[in-house]
Amino acid sequence: MKRIAIDMDEVLADTVAKRLAMYLTDFGIEFPREKLHGYKIYDVVAEDHRSQVRAQLTLAGFFRDIPVMPGSREVLRDLMEHYEVFITTAAMEYPNSFAEKYEWIKEHLPFFPDSHIVFCGDKSIIQADFLIDDTPHHFDRFVGQGILFTASHNVHETRFPRVDSWEDVRKRFLG
Amino acid sequence: MKRIAIDMDEVLADTVAKRLAMYLTDFGIEFPREKLHGYKIYDVVAEDHRSQVRAQLTLAGFFRDIPVMPGSREVLRDLMEHYEVFITTAAMEYPNSFAEKYEWIKEHLPFFPDSHIVFCGDKSIIQADFLIDDTPHHFDRFVGQGILFTASHNVHETRFPRVDSWEDVRKRFLG
Repeated sequence: MKRIAIDMDEVLADTVAKRLAMYLTDFGIEFPREKLHGYKIYDVVAEDHRSQVRAQLTLAGFFRDIPVMPGSREVLRDLMEHYEVFITTAAMEYPNSFAEKYEWIKEHLPFFPDSHIVFCGDKSIIQADFLIDDTPHHFDRFVGQGILFTASHNVHETRFPRVDSWEDVRKRFLG
Repeated sequence: MKRIAIDMDEVLADTVAKRLAMYLTDFGIEFPREKLHGYKIYDVVAEDHRSQVRAQLTLAGFFRDIPVMPGSREVLRDLMEHYEVFITTAAMEYPNSFAEKYEWIKEHLPFFPDSHIVFCGDKSIIQADFLIDDTPHHFDRFVGQGILFTASHNVHETRFPRVDSWEDVRKRFLG
């Protein structure tokens, strides 16, 4: 059985939606998602807002109530019937995120086994045939095939096969 | 550069020492380590103590103050000059352990990079040349060479190359 490793933020979880909602709460500005095309959110907001926006991910609770990416739950469940699936998330960058990420998985993906959850940093440690991730640098030393999940910040990346949505994931892996 | 993955409990951390100390505190009985030969602690204590001993690992704080395994810090640091080293621990069995294990590494192995810490369940997800671990079943689907770190519970296991101590690890990997 082939093995697929899947990232959380901006792949299973719609982390950008949470960040834009926080930005609206903190600064009263509704930032349109289209304006992020080619950028990370902290690159495009007003300069004096950037440090606070960068710090969003370090706040207690940040990772606990991120919306589920549309379609991710259903396609993940279907993938698990034909592949061995792991969730592989770079949690070490934000040690406050461990418990929150685990609880998020338990709430939204209750069918997913604990044994197949991985909190890591450098994803070259992942032994899998495919890695679905929004961050191209994780593919640099990855042993399998990197599949780029489209996110606003990676739209100009051309080196890897790309999926634009979970329906795209379904088409690629389940035909 | 070859890559070595290293387990925490009963390899970097002397988890059995902590469990025996807790047993002494809880039941007033000093259980000699030699009596564990071939067994896990919960297999050999009095039958009516077993459920409490099994539950030790689920208690808040359990993983935070485990003693460092003799020699592990020094040899780990030396290994890192000649190998790419990851710490790979099956934290998903005890979700209360995430923050405690991370803080333990920060305290005792402050030179170790966050990027190379992995909290996982099924260790077949680890892409490495060697895995030093006390639990033989982690070698079943591991892509590299499993190296069994001697612990009381694994003394009868004969299928894998074995190291008895961190000085043994030094000899095997640093000549």
